[in-house]
Amino acid sequence: MSFTTRDLADRIDAELIGDETRQISGAAALGHTTDGDLSFFTQAVTPADLDGCRAAALVVTRELAESVQAHTNAIPLLVVDDAQAGFMALLPLFRPQRPRPAIGLSAAAIAGTGIEIGENTNVFPGAVIGDDVVIGSGCDIFPGAVIGDGCRLGDDVTVYPNAVLYPELILGHRVIVHAGAVIGADGFGFRFEHDEEFPDGHYVKLPHYGSVHVGDDVEIGAGTTIDRGMIGPTVIGTGTKLDDQEMIAHNCEVGPHNVYASQVAMAGSVTTGGYVRCGGKVGISDHLTIGEGASMAAMSAVVRDVPDGDTHLGYPAGPEAETLRVLLAQKRLPKLLRTVQHLQQRVEELNQRLENLTASSQENSV
Amino acid sequence: MSFTTRDLADRIDAELIGDETRQISGAAALGHTTDGDLSFFTQAVTPADLDGCRAAALVVTRELAESVQAHTNAIPLLVVDDAQAGFMALLPLFRPQRPRPAIGLSAAAIAGTGIEIGENTNVFPGAVIGDDVVIGSGCDIFPGAVIGDGCRLGDDVTVYPNAVLYPELILGHRVIVHAGAVIGADGFGFRFEHDEEFPDGHYVKLPHYGSVHVGDDVEIGAGTTIDRGMIGPTVIGTGTKLDDQEMIAHNCEVGPHNVYASQVAMAGSVTTGGYVRCGGKVGISDHLTIGEGASMAAMSAVVRDVPDGDTHLGYPAGPEAETLRVLLAQKRLPKLLRTVQHLQQRVEELNQRLENLTASSQENSV
Amino acid sequence: MSFTTRDLADRIDAELIGDETRQISGAAALGHTTDGDLSFFTQAVTPADLDGCRAAALVVTRELAESVQAHTNAIPLLVVDDAQAGFMALLPLFRPQRPRPAIGLSAAAIAGTGIEIGENTNVFPGAVIGDDVVIGSGCDIFPGAVIGDGCRLGDDVTVYPNAVLYPELILGHRVIVHAGAVIGADGFGFRFEHDEEFPDGHYVKLPHYGSVHVGDDVEIGAGTTIDRGMIGPTVIGTGTKLDDQEMIAHNCEVGPHNVYASQVAMAGSVTTGGYVRCGGKVGISDHLTIGEGASMAAMSAVVRDVPDGDTHLGYPAGPEAETLRVLLAQKRLPKLLRTVQHLQQRVEELNQRLENLTASSQENSV
Repeated sequence: MSFTTRDLADRIDAELIGDETRQISGAAALGHTTDGDLSFFTQAVTPADLDGCRAAALVVTRELAESVQAHTNAIPLLVVDDAQAGFMALLPLFRPQRPRPAIGLSAAAIAGTGIEIGENTNVFPGAVIGDDVVIGSGCDIFPGAVIGDGCRLGDDVTVYPNAVLYPELILGHRVIVHAGAVIGADGFGFRFEHDEEFPDGHYVKLPHYGSVHVGDDVEIGAGTTIDRGMIGPTVIGTGTKLDDQEMIAHNCEVGPHNVYASQVAMAGSVTTGGYVRCGGKVGISDHLTIGEGASMAAMSAVVRDVPDGDTHLGYPAGPEAETLRVLLAQKRLPKLLRTVQHLQQRVEELNQRLENLTASSQENSV
Repeated sequence: MSFTTRDLADRIDAELIGDETRQISGAAALGHTTDGDLSFFTQAVTPADLDGCRAAALVVTRELAESVQAHTNAIPLLVVDDAQAGFMALLPLFRPQRPRPAIGLSAAAIAGTGIEIGENTNVFPGAVIGDDVVIGSGCDIFPGAVIGDGCRLGDDVTVYPNAVLYPELILGHRVIVHAGAVIGADGFGFRFEHDEEFPDGHYVKLPHYGSVHVGDDVEIGAGTTIDRGMIGPTVIGTGTKLDDQEMIAHNCEVGPHNVYASQVAMAGSVTTGGYVRCGGKVGISDHLTIGEGASMAAMSAVVRDVPDGDTHLGYPAGPEAETLRVLLAQKRLPKLLRTVQHLQQRVEELNQRLENLTASSQENSV
Repeated sequence: MSFTTRDLADRIDAELIGDETRQISGAAALGHTTDGDLSFFTQAVTPADLDGCRAAALVVTRELAESVQAHTNAIPLLVVDDAQAGFMALLPLFRPQRPRPAIGLSAAAIAGTGIEIGENTNVFPGAVIGDDVVIGSGCDIFPGAVIGDGCRLGDDVTVYPNAVLYPELILGHRVIVHAGAVIGADGFGFRFEHDEEFPDGHYVKLPHYGSVHVGDDVEIGAGTTIDRGMIGPTVIGTGTKLDDQEMIAHNCEVGPHNVYASQVAMAGSVTTGGYVRCGGKVGISDHLTIGEGASMAAMSAVVRDVPDGDTHLGYPAGPEAETLRVLLAQKRLPKLLRTVQHLQQRVEELNQRLENLTASSQENSV
């Protein structure tokens, strides 16, 4: 597949600067270009960028167009307002996507009774739909996905292969559940009890009758687990994006438009406001409240509430500026130990000299 | 569904204080009540709790009953010895559970040869049972669960959808394996070898011939992985509860009645005593011994043995009191650096004054 | 099953020292031996090892043979150059493995159109193969494994139950994908945009058109997730071994012969050289470069590039020697605070004495 620069420019309403007939046969990120590739620029251009760049054409903004031309006139430029968006709009030409099939409820799926499925929804072969499940229109339920009894899914929901929804969950519209994610497993709740069989005690399971409610436009990463609540539901707010291998425990209430990098673990009954951001591998203790717009840096151990808009980090996590001061100070610690040891000697030396002087002074004054 | 307070009180042998005819139509945790809800109290009552509380009735202990009444007489009370247990016993009335089906070995399951399955066991459509598998009575093997060749499961075992048991494992009675858990994958063992093809070396897989033995009453969370041993088995002790996304490596021997919050990772050949507790995201180095009743705080990096009954925390983890002292001291570090700098100046100033004094003293004494 | 020591020795070309007719009926690691077991020794022998050891025969090197005999002559010894290799070669006698079946493409698998499958490849019942998939010879695709449209797999590839390959991936020869692993899910990439419906902003998904390319001889652990790239591929180098529950984000380029213990998370666009090693639970920030032969200790938070051959550790991670000095110094911090407090008092005391002396000296000199 090959396109002229003119053809590509027209497809995204770009102004074309340079050769209109250059053949573009691929697309790549700037550092990965080979001959014939389209690429794009979103940051200040340096000669080094262009030295290594084998792009046959670049999507750029007006400002960067001038910057590129200051270094070279050899590369045709497609000038647009948003270079990434323009490039991404052309990318499917070079990565042709398969058309979405029209399967409906496949005869090779396993389906229970009392199911309602909307128009234009695919339940692929090997998918499993429990009893009394309601699925909206435009959904894709891929092979091996298991939708438990009584679940209700909105429109345009995608459940990728081998993801599992336990029974009685509610998912909004345009939710994406990636492969291997598990939603609605029992929360981790036990009572420690002693009885005749276990005089030293044993853990007795607390049943979990709550659900999981997932808002519209939520994306749930591969291998992520979201446990069901004990009494009421665990909640994932509208527009929230969870990366792979997150753990959201029972009765958490995650606010809208949160975004968490992978392997975040949130213990039970945590509540977050809107627009909260977590770096990867953050741990959050149970029953905490994370304020609107708060951020937590990667690998932080959050053990107390985070106020609105604050950034916390560290082990244990604290306010950013304070914690960075401590982390920087720690690097000076080995030297500080030597400094203090030296000070001790110096002070004892002063003491000795002072004693000598006092003695001689007393002699003099006698 | 709606019940009178009298009806609910009778069902759990509670003493009823207040309106006997109040209609109860739902149930919720205290902070989540809406009109008509039953709720319960397990801790000291404050007016603030009751201000926000829209519960139509409360399950309480005798002691808290008086405390609630001290604030208000408006809420009917169901007085019992154990408020949580009483409430949880009534909760299914408001969260009706589907009856367990009687499926037996579904014709839509995939079943090998030489299988033995006990009475009253369900192998759901889409489940996969390998050759020579033995499953006890009263078990549920859900859709997409895969039970490898030669596995032996006790009675009343539940394997949720898409969980995988590799071949030749042994599970006790009443074991629960949540969705997406993987038991018995090869341990992570390799030999680094040099040969003609790889003069700089390459990793050669060590085969894993051991098994995984899971005791009675063990619960294994969603997405948890427990690797098989290399020679002998990896062992999970009776009554142990593992949350979601735990990693138990090859040849670990986890003791009885351990309880680990999510994302704990235990490297190979770790041994734990009974009643060990781990907070979330704890990492434990290989070949360590964790003593009976030991605890490890969330996100600790355990790199040495933990004695019986001790609590360790930190990075790297150490005894609790010692580590907390260090963590607290760290916060004072930036100020300490300034203090020491000031001390250095002060000492130099003293030194200068002492020199001056010595000089003048020598003058005097001349 | 039982074998004589002579029979076993002959099978691995070992020199036999001691009883040639001893019956060996099992095999175990040294600390787990029961009567009749074969075991092996790979390190310095102490009397304590032999006191606890119930092995009926031992595989040892020449050097350790003498060492064992120095303590006891009672145990027959199979003397070889490599004791672990010798023992592992005999182990299958006591852990008989099931023969690999010859299934071909099972009629109970779900298969798309345009598939090519090599000789001697098994696609088990319940496996799912998408359209236009190419699978080499000698592969095993186990039940519940899902191979997305357009994937291309080399020869001798194993995909364990319920692992998922999203569409259009490329896997080399002899790749092992363990159960529940998910390869090729969308990378975690969004643009934060404001519009009329979301004046405070919302996250808009960036489509991911890249692939995942997995080299020869790669092993991917249970529950591991490797996301597809946005434009170009995520790459896993030849011979690299990933343990369970790793997270490799979009557009990472993992070099050859890397080895990572479980729960490592690598953010987007990280590049590693060859022979990189990671302890468990390491986190690596996005866009970093990890040099050839570099190591990162368990639970390190890597936030800057690691040079070739260096070992980094800590939170945040730094060079090993430097970080260990800081970690050791931290333990002395509580005492340091007291020392400095004492020094302050001491200095004030010296100051006072100096003032007194100065005053008396001035009196004297008057």
